[in-house]
Amino acid sequence: MDTFSTSHNHTTALFHDGLTLDCGRHLAPVEIAYCTYGVLSPARDNAILICHALTGDQYVAQTHPLTGRAGWWEGMVGPGRAIDTNRFFVICSNVLGGCMGSTGPRSPKPSTENVAEPWGTDFPPLTIRDMVRGQEMLIRHLGITRLFAVIGGSMGGMQVLEWTTTFPEKVFAAMPIATAPFHSAQNIAFNEVSRQAITADPEFHNGRYWETGAIPARGLGVARMMAHITYLSEEALTRKFGRRTRPDPQRLASKDTSLLGEIFEVESYLRHQGSSFVRRFDANSYLTITRAMDWMDLAADHDGDFSAAFAGTPIRFCVVSFSSDWLFPTSQSRLLVRALNRAAANVSFVEIESDKGHDAFLLDEPDFERTVRGFITGAAEHAQLSVASHTEG
Amino acid sequence: MDTFSTSHNHTTALFHDGLTLDCGRHLAPVEIAYCTYGVLSPARDNAILICHALTGDQYVAQTHPLTGRAGWWEGMVGPGRAIDTNRFFVICSNVLGGCMGSTGPRSPKPSTENVAEPWGTDFPPLTIRDMVRGQEMLIRHLGITRLFAVIGGSMGGMQVLEWTTTFPEKVFAAMPIATAPFHSAQNIAFNEVSRQAITADPEFHNGRYWETGAIPARGLGVARMMAHITYLSEEALTRKFGRRTRPDPQRLASKDTSLLGEIFEVESYLRHQGSSFVRRFDANSYLTITRAMDWMDLAADHDGDFSAAFAGTPIRFCVVSFSSDWLFPTSQSRLLVRALNRAAANVSFVEIESDKGHDAFLLDEPDFERTVRGFITGAAEHAQLSVASHTEG
Repeated sequence: MDTFSTSHNHTTALFHDGLTLDCGRHLAPVEIAYCTYGVLSPARDNAILICHALTGDQYVAQTHPLTGRAGWWEGMVGPGRAIDTNRFFVICSNVLGGCMGSTGPRSPKPSTENVAEPWGTDFPPLTIRDMVRGQEMLIRHLGITRLFAVIGGSMGGMQVLEWTTTFPEKVFAAMPIATAPFHSAQNIAFNEVSRQAITADPEFHNGRYWETGAIPARGLGVARMMAHITYLSEEALTRKFGRRTRPDPQRLASKDTSLLGEIFEVESYLRHQGSSFVRRFDANSYLTITRAMDWMDLAADHDGDFSAAFAGTPIRFCVVSFSSDWLFPTSQSRLLVRALNRAAANVSFVEIESDKGHDAFLLDEPDFERTVRGFITGAAEHAQLSVASHTEG
Repeated sequence: MDTFSTSHNHTTALFHDGLTLDCGRHLAPVEIAYCTYGVLSPARDNAILICHALTGDQYVAQTHPLTGRAGWWEGMVGPGRAIDTNRFFVICSNVLGGCMGSTGPRSPKPSTENVAEPWGTDFPPLTIRDMVRGQEMLIRHLGITRLFAVIGGSMGGMQVLEWTTTFPEKVFAAMPIATAPFHSAQNIAFNEVSRQAITADPEFHNGRYWETGAIPARGLGVARMMAHITYLSEEALTRKFGRRTRPDPQRLASKDTSLLGEIFEVESYLRHQGSSFVRRFDANSYLTITRAMDWMDLAADHDGDFSAAFAGTPIRFCVVSFSSDWLFPTSQSRLLVRALNRAAANVSFVEIESDKGHDAFLLDEPDFERTVRGFITGAAEHAQLSVASHTEG
């Protein structure tokens, strides 16, 4: 029997029976940690599921409990925002394999004599579709038959795509943002370097780092630093940092610094990105989730033709890319849109002009905000939602 | 007094008096290891200096003594090649700070009681101009007053630019390829991640890894893997590897692999790139040379206006970029060309259409080969070289 514990609006749902994964193994129990905002309408037809990216979590619109920082999409989700919590019931859950409360490598491994032992690298390999299956269990648990919308960027967009192909009857509208229907060779390559950096750290201890009380902080930090470069455009890095150096005039005038000293502001920024990340993220989760991204390939799942994945789809799509995103470039969104067109799907496509790179979807981009608001408003009119507006409880 | 030892055509020149570096410190003695091809004309006017990239060396057109692989530019340099050793005296030297015989972090540190102790991270910080100063000493040593041409790609192109601004009277023609007049924030960022990967390796031992007999192989391997991605275009990675997996049908069908196992061919390729690199390259050299690249900024050296660096230059320039190079994109070559135009320099500019990324300059690209051949032939006619042609000895 499923249980349910609530503390404010972040919550964990426990599914004793678990679920069977794409790898063939059965994972049980399964916990899904999630946050909700707004009120579910009596007709249960105003739910929007937001899917988070690789290093995101369920704290989409509230202060993060570990970092104390604002939710990762507070500019987009809230009362009166583009994703308006006065009108919609918004759900965001930590992905399976994650480390913020959903079942993942840090969760206790069942059937071990030492009940405190976590899964670690014994955690079964996941796919994006497995993450979506976990979300679908949660949605059912909340009594929702069909989501009004599924929205997400980057790996969140991959989840949106898996929702539309795995549970097409359970989604009214879908917004895959800054994403792709498959992970490219370059993306796999960057992920693999991240994994090598983590596993090269002797504190990794073949994934059993909990035994020592230490974490592979340096390897995970290097992985995060590299990934962070891929989230920004060259233009954004140049505008933010250029070739500015840290203020140490004497040292700089002579160039006679230590070989290992910090010099450029961009270096200091990246080191900070790395060191703050390792305090909130689990290395084995990073390995598990990057693998899941690498396996993403809608075409391979449909005999090489991923328009077949969308055949007869009833879903309204809005595909969004950003002009300076080189990690998930517009060309990949165009492939997706062409496949949707071949499937005669209802799809609009917007490339947002931005020089902020992949991370633009997380940042203040008025054109993007207007696009999200417009798509949701239009879809809601079309759906004739039972509740037009109500205020948050 | 300078000494000179020869074994075939790879040689080391020793300069007891050394040189004063940009950082203000004096480095002595200085050794420069180099290879030559062809014969210096009696008028000493047919010398071409080839400058190598970050991980290159002097073995430009002969088998590498450590790897047994062909020289890194054998397709371009040799009898009858675009850089024709029947006609030109070709010189290629290992950069200062390198690890193939020129003075660098692996060289003995003077004035230490233990004469076997290498410089390590005590090696003074170098600039690209320091590398060029070392080459200029070598050229004088060889009795050459003026080089017919200086040619190089990537960091080699940075050296070409420093040659033209530091010793303009000593260069007749210059060909900076796939390079930039400054290192961008993105380039610095990637280099910094490389350095962090190296120094995070516990085998690095704060740079004193020679004491243990081990090397920071995993960190250096991660650094190389990441850098290698930046040398290739997304198109090249997709064409070479796509999403092809290693042939293990059973494992792949179930997706039930180890979390750490290899899956995609691109991963296997990158791991090989990393592991083969660490057998031939020194980690402290990598730190030293990447720092030198980061400091490259012709504009900063000339009060923010790098056209001033070329004022009144007598040199004939040919600037080359590659359309799919995102590490040193065409936009940066255009900045260089505009500065040369403002300085009323004799400059031609060619963007080669290629989908091979930054590494295109090392690969078989017929348009590029024709460009090099054409520029050299034209410049040689203009220079009225004393020796039109002779065969190799």
